[in-house]
Amino acid sequence: MKIFPVIMAGGSGTRFWPLSRRDRPKQFLALVGDLPMLAATVRRLPPLARPADTYVVCGPAHAAAARKLLRDLPAANFVVEPCARNTAPCVGLAALHVAAREKRGIVAMLPADHHVARPEAFREAVAAAARLAEAGAIATIGIRPHAPETGYGYLKVGARLPGKGKAASHAHKVERFVEKPDVVTAARYLADGSYLWNSGIFVFRADVILEEIRRAMPVLGEQLSVIQASLGTPSHRRVLARVFPDCPSISIDYGVMEKSQRIVVVPADFGWSDVGSFAALPEVRETDHLGNVAEGDALVIDGRNNVVLANGKRPVAVVGIDDAVVVDAGDAVLVVRRDRAQDVRKVVEELARRGREEVL
Amino acid sequence: MKIFPVIMAGGSGTRFWPLSRRDRPKQFLALVGDLPMLAATVRRLPPLARPADTYVVCGPAHAAAARKLLRDLPAANFVVEPCARNTAPCVGLAALHVAAREKRGIVAMLPADHHVARPEAFREAVAAAARLAEAGAIATIGIRPHAPETGYGYLKVGARLPGKGKAASHAHKVERFVEKPDVVTAARYLADGSYLWNSGIFVFRADVILEEIRRAMPVLGEQLSVIQASLGTPSHRRVLARVFPDCPSISIDYGVMEKSQRIVVVPADFGWSDVGSFAALPEVRETDHLGNVAEGDALVIDGRNNVVLANGKRPVAVVGIDDAVVVDAGDAVLVVRRDRAQDVRKVVEELARRGREEVL
Repeated sequence: MKIFPVIMAGGSGTRFWPLSRRDRPKQFLALVGDLPMLAATVRRLPPLARPADTYVVCGPAHAAAARKLLRDLPAANFVVEPCARNTAPCVGLAALHVAAREKRGIVAMLPADHHVARPEAFREAVAAAARLAEAGAIATIGIRPHAPETGYGYLKVGARLPGKGKAASHAHKVERFVEKPDVVTAARYLADGSYLWNSGIFVFRADVILEEIRRAMPVLGEQLSVIQASLGTPSHRRVLARVFPDCPSISIDYGVMEKSQRIVVVPADFGWSDVGSFAALPEVRETDHLGNVAEGDALVIDGRNNVVLANGKRPVAVVGIDDAVVVDAGDAVLVVRRDRAQDVRKVVEELARRGREEVL
Repeated sequence: MKIFPVIMAGGSGTRFWPLSRRDRPKQFLALVGDLPMLAATVRRLPPLARPADTYVVCGPAHAAAARKLLRDLPAANFVVEPCARNTAPCVGLAALHVAAREKRGIVAMLPADHHVARPEAFREAVAAAARLAEAGAIATIGIRPHAPETGYGYLKVGARLPGKGKAASHAHKVERFVEKPDVVTAARYLADGSYLWNSGIFVFRADVILEEIRRAMPVLGEQLSVIQASLGTPSHRRVLARVFPDCPSISIDYGVMEKSQRIVVVPADFGWSDVGSFAALPEVRETDHLGNVAEGDALVIDGRNNVVLANGKRPVAVVGIDDAVVVDAGDAVLVVRRDRAQDVRKVVEELARRGREEVL
């Protein structure tokens, strides 16, 4: 079964400042292993999918960097959005490209900046989802939760699919999507056992998702039809630049998935993390015996559960502090309490307000 | 009354790393105002004493820097110890130099790295101590405590001096010297009212201190006599280099003051601080309305009572943390909890162990 992975690399998050910058967002950082997260995302696909069938969707500011990073992929497989319009238009645009190659081609939408500890199990889950997609479902992958995470959306698992065979054996209907819960609700979900983390991974046939978009978001459906008519013609770029910015900026979850009757979920457990902030690094990286993640010229004395990234070619000493994040990016330094790591965006906002373009 | 201030600038402390280094110890740092502490110490003396009468004692590694910093002082007033031997030999050597100019010259020994918020009150206290010294006393200045400080030594105040006149009116005998207490004892001292902080400032006649040294530390007395005989001769430097390293490494407090019957104390209150570590900076520097000391390109968001010194020509952002010290010295970064600031020396020890000479 041929799968067309489409990697969504349009993110421009600010929660990894000062490592991340406007021209080097999270997906270009090697936050977990030696590879930038985008490269690791592509690397873990074979033998499930071939580089020739793998697509990357990103913004114009990052297209050159993405091409340079992913030399195995054909140039035509880099789909450049003229501007960011959330995931619904992104998915629609990607589906057009796949449909141009195979009308009923199976698309696996993958975030570019998530970590997977066990790639083999990941590929098995995507393959199971692909078998369901082949039969017309929109299959998402739900991660079995092991903590009351408030940073993830959840899926409420519904009835088990009736079909026989390996593909359907572990799959369920999705009863509903749930927004990021508070910690009490998250604990209830964890105890309940019928909630899964929404991994943001969706697998579907190109023709199916385009049909679902036309049903749930008719305006976007029309806009995609205009773009589709231009695909492969000299006017495509001009049409895309005219039409795409007008597309509604809505997530595929909200715009389509939550309204679709075709949604099924494959529960899985492959060491997934969305690596949402520096605070997540101790969960996905090696720590010392006191729980510290230390990188580069870092020196931690009498400290536990710290994240110290000394990338500035100079020593960074941390003494008598627990649960802190200390990042030296060379041209900027950040110190933040680990449980406030998501507030790093406030620094970026303040630096932007002060016009400090050189460190944004 | 002529006073010969002698500034003890031989310190090589490590508690201000990474700002302080072997070749730039604390007294050369502008920790409080715009001036390096040594320069501020000299600057606050006039009109109490003249630059021509002011001496600086330091080690060979810092003599050139001290001369460069203090161009008002005659070259002959820089007394270079061949090696550090604590304060008793330092005081003895300084007294020899002053005695060579005036046998009964009044010497005011002053640490080079303390802060004084009210110089006028400081000069008044030293002048009062000098009047007592003129009459043969060894006068120390005791600071009225306003907190149960565990980082300072204390003086137990004894009987009020019987003499009349302004000089004696506020002076007391010293009942005893007390080592740095624990916090319970310090609180008791504070409540008691008869304990003062030992400022480390001593005022005495050159002939008196030399006599007291000979009485309490006869070996050092002999060694000083050998050095004294060479003063002003071509062989002085050679004699000093031979004799001084053999002098006992003992503090003047322990070696002489605590055994002397001539000790009196002038209670005073001139906004004194020994600025013992980064943790002391909020007490002696301007803070923002949340108690933060911020210097250079520092950005504190949702944080209180932090010390953020961004001296590295790049932004240092601190988010969601209280009571932290963050120092960027350009070629090294330090993060330490404020109440652990004295443990910065552990970093220096560890870097020394690793042979990181370039940042020591």
